[in-house]
Amino acid sequence: MTASTTPGTTAAPLLGIDWGTSNRRAYLLDERGELVRKHEDDAGILNVQGRFGDSLRDLLQTLQVGSADIILSGMVGSRNGWVEAPYLDISQPITELKNHLLEVDSGLPGVRCRIVPGYRYLDPQGLPDVMRGEEAQVLGALALSASSGWFLLPGTHSKWVHVEDGTVRALLTFMTGELFALMSQHGTLSKVITAEQSIPAAFEAGLRAAPHGAFTHMAFCCRALVVTDMMPPDHTASYLSGLLIGSELDDIRRRSGGDFNVPVQVVGSPGLSARYLNALELLGTPARAWQPDGVYVAALRHLFQLER
Amino acid sequence: MTASTTPGTTAAPLLGIDWGTSNRRAYLLDERGELVRKHEDDAGILNVQGRFGDSLRDLLQTLQVGSADIILSGMVGSRNGWVEAPYLDISQPITELKNHLLEVDSGLPGVRCRIVPGYRYLDPQGLPDVMRGEEAQVLGALALSASSGWFLLPGTHSKWVHVEDGTVRALLTFMTGELFALMSQHGTLSKVITAEQSIPAAFEAGLRAAPHGAFTHMAFCCRALVVTDMMPPDHTASYLSGLLIGSELDDIRRRSGGDFNVPVQVVGSPGLSARYLNALELLGTPARAWQPDGVYVAALRHLFQLER
Repeated sequence: MTASTTPGTTAAPLLGIDWGTSNRRAYLLDERGELVRKHEDDAGILNVQGRFGDSLRDLLQTLQVGSADIILSGMVGSRNGWVEAPYLDISQPITELKNHLLEVDSGLPGVRCRIVPGYRYLDPQGLPDVMRGEEAQVLGALALSASSGWFLLPGTHSKWVHVEDGTVRALLTFMTGELFALMSQHGTLSKVITAEQSIPAAFEAGLRAAPHGAFTHMAFCCRALVVTDMMPPDHTASYLSGLLIGSELDDIRRRSGGDFNVPVQVVGSPGLSARYLNALELLGTPARAWQPDGVYVAALRHLFQLER
Repeated sequence: MTASTTPGTTAAPLLGIDWGTSNRRAYLLDERGELVRKHEDDAGILNVQGRFGDSLRDLLQTLQVGSADIILSGMVGSRNGWVEAPYLDISQPITELKNHLLEVDSGLPGVRCRIVPGYRYLDPQGLPDVMRGEEAQVLGALALSASSGWFLLPGTHSKWVHVEDGTVRALLTFMTGELFALMSQHGTLSKVITAEQSIPAAFEAGLRAAPHGAFTHMAFCCRALVVTDMMPPDHTASYLSGLLIGSELDDIRRRSGGDFNVPVQVVGSPGLSARYLNALELLGTPARAWQPDGVYVAALRHLFQLER
């Protein structure tokens, strides 16, 4: 029993769930916002279709939690998730997300359940981009440090979010991880790609080549380097990785008018972030790395209004 | 018996074979260079590993040809083909290819067999690109009309060849067809792509969107258009096709300093060429379409030195 609970009662545990497509991560906090327990499983939305309430009940049992105040983020709020939480327009500041949570009837007594909505962005040409889940990570990083600028969230679909004064100004997704997987597993380059190779010089060569042409051409140059004996076959994976990340960085640099003075804030696990941090360093762009768990817990504190 | 044969002998038939990775097309000419018969089969180099001589003998039997003067082009001259014909540097004019044919000992009596070498190009950044087979198509188009400019050879790997005065000035390959197949069959977009759809408005939208960012980002916009209800799911295939072709055209346009005044010469089957011709028309770029068989026969006449 803590000072914030009424005598004779137990405060409902605070539970944040980053509920994605394939995986689910649950963060149990005490009423001061300290992380008590983290649980991760593969009950992503693809594996839970039509059984979201049951799946949540099972999770609460696993965590030995009866009543709870729950915040869900990620693809659980998509059309293929539990309840669709309409995308917010970027005119709604990310620092005001706590006012836009969508209540979900979990069907479980003593359980309050709310979903964080994602964001939709229209670029100057009117083309849309979207995020679900990353907005909570960005909120957490903002809660930990007030700085504006580009946030990079590496992943299968790498997200770049430009934030000024707590408001999203731009949002761009790159299919970097997905295209690397597709091209490594199928198609022309897969014939020579040897997985798990990491050749720093080849990564840098791909990174520096990327701005010189369309990705669909530069990827063929990677093949041509091998057939002309200008590059060993086992450099292909690193070169392709450099090319894909270089293509991202070149796009963002152009949109920023070539200006990358403020550190890029990279929110991701060390493994996911390493290549991006390396790329940013090679290109002379300052970067700051954030651990996603710490950032997520900070976001939960903000959403549960436990800011200290 | 024609005027060009010695009395009492029969001129060896002239045979050109476009011997690719998966397929093989054979063109039997008479001694005046007229097409007598065309034969097509699936004896591409992947299916003929280690049995090239036997495969050629079988083909000659099928065509009921004993002795023959044969010219091979395409991947048959690659490292994974019959005999590797080293790439020519672009300093060797394409109109001089007949002086660079590589003799192959076919092991078949009365059969003279020569391979057309491909080309290697280094772009201003020193990045290589290569072609094998397309050089014969370009030669044929040049033999039929003298104009310089960009030649486009659509395919799984779409080739753009810039020719001036019979010499290759630039060579760029785009993995357009391959990436379309990969992304339609696997990954995020494949979930919504309905094959065989052709929606002109979606194709044009993708084409016009392409210059606005990296392909790896624009491809995600295609997904975002669907999840934000800005585009029906069955438009995705056409949009992606427009995006890929638009990415090619934008790259070539930039390299040409924005200048596309001379017609692009498109050498490909009507099916392969249709989308490119449509794209060029939408962007206001003049184009001229060439039938690949006629072009190839013209190349053979040139290589057999039957020019009229």
